[in-house]
Amino acid sequence: MNPNTAVEQLHSIDRECRHLEKTTALLQWDQETQLPPGAVEDRAEQIALVQSIWHRKLTDPQTGRLLDELGADEQTPGGDEKLPRLERDFCRVFRRNYDRAVKLPEDLVRDAARAEGLSQAAWVEARQANDFASFVPHLTAMIDFARKKARCWGFEGPRAYDGLLDLYEPGLTAAETEALFTPLKEGLSALLQKIARAAPPETSFLDREYKVEEQVRFNRELMEGLGFDTRRGRLDISVHPFTSSLGFNDIRITTRYAPANVLSSVFSTIHESGHAFYELGLSPELQGSCLAEGASMAVHESQSRLWENVIGRSLPFWEWWLPRLKARFPEQLLGVAPEAFYRAVNQVRPSLIRVDADEVSYALHIILRFELEKQLFAGSLRVEDLPGAWNRLMKDLIGVTPPSDTAGVLQDVHWSMGSFGYFPSYALGNLYGLQIWEKLRQDLPETGTLIREGKFEILYQWLREKIYRSGCRVEPAALLAQVTGEKLSVNPFLRYLKDKYTVLYGL
Amino acid sequence: MNPNTAVEQLHSIDRECRHLEKTTALLQWDQETQLPPGAVEDRAEQIALVQSIWHRKLTDPQTGRLLDELGADEQTPGGDEKLPRLERDFCRVFRRNYDRAVKLPEDLVRDAARAEGLSQAAWVEARQANDFASFVPHLTAMIDFARKKARCWGFEGPRAYDGLLDLYEPGLTAAETEALFTPLKEGLSALLQKIARAAPPETSFLDREYKVEEQVRFNRELMEGLGFDTRRGRLDISVHPFTSSLGFNDIRITTRYAPANVLSSVFSTIHESGHAFYELGLSPELQGSCLAEGASMAVHESQSRLWENVIGRSLPFWEWWLPRLKARFPEQLLGVAPEAFYRAVNQVRPSLIRVDADEVSYALHIILRFELEKQLFAGSLRVEDLPGAWNRLMKDLIGVTPPSDTAGVLQDVHWSMGSFGYFPSYALGNLYGLQIWEKLRQDLPETGTLIREGKFEILYQWLREKIYRSGCRVEPAALLAQVTGEKLSVNPFLRYLKDKYTVLYGL
Repeated sequence: MNPNTAVEQLHSIDRECRHLEKTTALLQWDQETQLPPGAVEDRAEQIALVQSIWHRKLTDPQTGRLLDELGADEQTPGGDEKLPRLERDFCRVFRRNYDRAVKLPEDLVRDAARAEGLSQAAWVEARQANDFASFVPHLTAMIDFARKKARCWGFEGPRAYDGLLDLYEPGLTAAETEALFTPLKEGLSALLQKIARAAPPETSFLDREYKVEEQVRFNRELMEGLGFDTRRGRLDISVHPFTSSLGFNDIRITTRYAPANVLSSVFSTIHESGHAFYELGLSPELQGSCLAEGASMAVHESQSRLWENVIGRSLPFWEWWLPRLKARFPEQLLGVAPEAFYRAVNQVRPSLIRVDADEVSYALHIILRFELEKQLFAGSLRVEDLPGAWNRLMKDLIGVTPPSDTAGVLQDVHWSMGSFGYFPSYALGNLYGLQIWEKLRQDLPETGTLIREGKFEILYQWLREKIYRSGCRVEPAALLAQVTGEKLSVNPFLRYLKDKYTVLYGL
Repeated sequence: MNPNTAVEQLHSIDRECRHLEKTTALLQWDQETQLPPGAVEDRAEQIALVQSIWHRKLTDPQTGRLLDELGADEQTPGGDEKLPRLERDFCRVFRRNYDRAVKLPEDLVRDAARAEGLSQAAWVEARQANDFASFVPHLTAMIDFARKKARCWGFEGPRAYDGLLDLYEPGLTAAETEALFTPLKEGLSALLQKIARAAPPETSFLDREYKVEEQVRFNRELMEGLGFDTRRGRLDISVHPFTSSLGFNDIRITTRYAPANVLSSVFSTIHESGHAFYELGLSPELQGSCLAEGASMAVHESQSRLWENVIGRSLPFWEWWLPRLKARFPEQLLGVAPEAFYRAVNQVRPSLIRVDADEVSYALHIILRFELEKQLFAGSLRVEDLPGAWNRLMKDLIGVTPPSDTAGVLQDVHWSMGSFGYFPSYALGNLYGLQIWEKLRQDLPETGTLIREGKFEILYQWLREKIYRSGCRVEPAALLAQVTGEKLSVNPFLRYLKDKYTVLYGL
């Protein structure tokens, strides 16, 4: 068969897989934003069915034959050298997806998908009722499914956790993660100790009531002001903020609102917008292809956390946005200057909740989850003992003890969906993000001025050219080397924090 | 094979088909309520793919073999007499669905589904821009697909329209429809002429501005007050109100809001709640089966129109609801008594828009569409000439001429989705509805008191037992005979209108 014909057939299979993946994503997005509570069981069945059809399509023997024909095997995954570069990248990524999928029996895929739907609904209820015990059987099942999948991928027994990390950051092991997290923990703890001795900023204006309806309007203004094209996406409400791609031109983000916590909705919106910008910035030539994905979860998180923290918690950002927020909340923010607001949104203090944590202690929340995941998959921690282990580690790392499991082990959605090995991406994202940001600052020395004048488009375009456009054509390490010339390191991130907080807290 | 084993296998196929049908329904519901405008093309592909997978599943040769094995053929569609009655009904309905689907080539299903998605989006734009010309190619394609499907079902050439009517009201022909519509048109025209000579009611309080936010709150209160269980459904906004079943416990309705037209949102909500009550009232033993459908589209519309008009436009209804509406709009409704509101919501006057029409002239809007559909499928009317034909018939039947195509031929979504033969269901629904209502009044003579006291639950329970519970286990004519002992007739409907409007207008 002519290689171009074979590639065209692979694209046709891939397009169907993508439509089924996006359909699954809609079923899930709808579950988290719209679904009536009585419909959870039917929805789990629907998701399980569509996922199993998708899995069957992807693992059809015809897919393997076409990949083999193109010479896209494990040694030369990019296949036939006569193909254009784009198609060779496509063959390589498709080969990886196929290899991963074909190793999973369809029953496992379907059973896991069904159980995930029910588990996630059980988590919502357990979290509301502060009832970890009711969630134990679901979490146990999720761990069991994850272990089975890891085994299918060749990660037996104690190596199971490596198999899960690999899913989000290709090739990453627990040992390599630890090699980064150890100096990270030391650097953060040292900085936190210094900050703890300094005077805290004035934040009383954040404790006032911020009406939800007005917050909703501000968040819309904010996402659009940052450059979110609402012809290609939307903003909704969910228990746990997330971004979902339901199509190349359908990127949906969510946030959550509480009258007593205006910062929560605002920074969730900025964070998820960062994810959305990655998806919205993919090159149109990737539309409908498996290349239309982020390079890895950590690179994806590098962008959400960069927009949220490095841009969103900067002084120039609030020089632009505070007047706009004040227009909606004139009484609550009377007399508050940008500098004061900047200090308040960067208040460093022990937090129980990861998504509300300041950027200095945030990665410690991740290290906590990483430690617990390792123990769960090593078999040295039982699910029943998780709340106790969580609370002890919180005390050790952050210095606080959750008053309830709702504010502790039940706070995150990830485990309920079987997403183990995902959390490290957030902290790795900080590392990627700051290495990329140092380069951006070199290329655009006037960054502060651009932000202060609301010209976010120029930052977006730089990031788009360097990172977003290529989707997952380039592996994360190669992408980082291509943009910065460096390997992944904790230094730029620690340097950024030290510089910023030394000034902020007068250390 | 043991007949119980064969039935269990059929149920398993049917359940997968239902999940795919509901997934398609979600993709469509989302398109009409949530989808970013840039994502329309991807969505059309997604819908087309899931529909084609559903079609392939339903028409799998294994389905036909199991039906044959059970003896469920065209002569004895209910199959094996050793099966319980419920399973025989299941075999009969599944046989009909299978026979209908297996006659359609998969390519036609997929191409039509994709084109419908694009056509519906094109209709939204054409309607907004009053640009019928831009919609012509889509409408032409929709008619072409419908004609092809009718041909597959054995309805050739001039009989094509019978094949489409049969889809919504099994066995109904254009000639039979006409035999009902002719006396209906005469009865309605005679009544309208009398009303035209009487003094119109006072309606100026309806012309005031009713804030949309407050309307939203009232419509929620209304749906819940009528008995809509929001654990099993929800209310959203769309261009054209509709009801969609996304699962046995996931029935979603939509309405639309305009500050200048409070009645539009209110009566749309009641109408769609009537559809929802049918779905929510199905017997739990039908869950996940093809029997969990209304008996026919006309019987379904009988319920929406019964709740909207016979209940919703009655004096006792507003004796209960007006104080609640007034609590939200005290200034707009200052000094308005229930009797005055009742007269206003029953104002009879020529309307351009079907869904805003009074219940006397409403069926004339349907007769107009029926006439045009007949001509389109007979080939005696070209799509390009449709606006002119529409406007002439509007003048003849209703006495008004649309100032724009937006307020004329472009007002309804149905044709854009290829739903030809659907419109007659609305008028037939009025006939079914009033025959059922006469029986309900005999069984529950205190109906007026129940409504006046907000006890809608008792009406719902009567309708549930008589109509909703059995889903499509019983054919429409048999169901009507079972409940009322009669054949379908225009008399109860015309009698109801004459009685009501003679008093209202002092004729």
